[in-house]
Amino acid sequence: MLITIEGIDGSGKTTLAQALAEKFNFTYFREPGATILGEKIREILLNTPMFPETELLLFSAARSQFVTEKLRPALEEGHVILDRYIDSTMAYQGYGLGIDRSFIRSLNAQATGGLQPQLTILLDLPVETAMSRTGNRIGHDRIEVRGKNFFELVREGYLITARANPERFEILDGTLPPEKIFTEAICTIGRRLEVVI
Amino acid sequence: MLITIEGIDGSGKTTLAQALAEKFNFTYFREPGATILGEKIREILLNTPMFPETELLLFSAARSQFVTEKLRPALEEGHVILDRYIDSTMAYQGYGLGIDRSFIRSLNAQATGGLQPQLTILLDLPVETAMSRTGNRIGHDRIEVRGKNFFELVREGYLITARANPERFEILDGTLPPEKIFTEAICTIGRRLEVVI
Repeated sequence: MLITIEGIDGSGKTTLAQALAEKFNFTYFREPGATILGEKIREILLNTPMFPETELLLFSAARSQFVTEKLRPALEEGHVILDRYIDSTMAYQGYGLGIDRSFIRSLNAQATGGLQPQLTILLDLPVETAMSRTGNRIGHDRIEVRGKNFFELVREGYLITARANPERFEILDGTLPPEKIFTEAICTIGRRLEVVI
Repeated sequence: MLITIEGIDGSGKTTLAQALAEKFNFTYFREPGATILGEKIREILLNTPMFPETELLLFSAARSQFVTEKLRPALEEGHVILDRYIDSTMAYQGYGLGIDRSFIRSLNAQATGGLQPQLTILLDLPVETAMSRTGNRIGHDRIEVRGKNFFELVREGYLITARANPERFEILDGTLPPEKIFTEAICTIGRRLEVVI
């Protein structure tokens, strides 16, 4: 079973994904750095100037390697929680950067061999709130420094995707305290996936 | 005007492309290393183990950056000769590695914004002849070490593509002496593109 956690930078995704993985003893991965190749691509993505299409293709290259090298083998052993997956690409490069969305859909399908999550938890919150959190982090990468308008488009893209796929998505309020979000997420997993919590 | 030179490793492509660029005073580029980003991607491509789809997406990422950063500006200034372009992707990753060819077509179109060459010169020769040439080179990269069967598929892929696009392709005999190939290529450019030679 594949569970993905999505949201804009500063939404609390990583904290939640790691806490859930520990609670349920699921495998946790974070793209794009989960393979040696992905780590090299990540370094380029964060530090080299590039055009939107190039960024999209680099993320997809890292994902393609990750799915075959790590994700599929891990799913044969048990459940997996991912910190970002295909919906990040649609939200950031599709809605955020304006790249053709039907091309992104075919690229996602090709890079993953069609491997879809059974459940996606979207942490939704106002962009200001998220930015006030990431503003305190040391060192900002090439993507984090994009302005408020960009992240508004990404947030809206996530919400459009979630509403179009209600059977897969659960939207949680990212402004709630972390322990409250954790409880909601545990109950969502228990209810939606019939896991004993 | 965009002219591309194609062929398997050891076909004499690079020698021809550089000689033609000098003769006509055209700009010469060689993918994937023609940009800073492409140089970083090239290093990964040549030295990191990866799956076929990942290789395809990395080449496409480098191309996407190259087309916008270098190729389009150069074409506004004059004619350009490329050592490999979209037909390499179809031949190597499509026919050679067996990745879905309609996906490669849409990826090529997306990565180049639909920018097609006006003329493509394919240097065709038996794989044994090409391999006996590259066999003498020092240091073989991850792609060059693929065996004879792989390069047979690539050669065949090039020929299929050339025959399907006769208005764009000229097939030259890569076993001829370099100066003879050079003369043939000059005449092809003169005849097909109405350039004064």
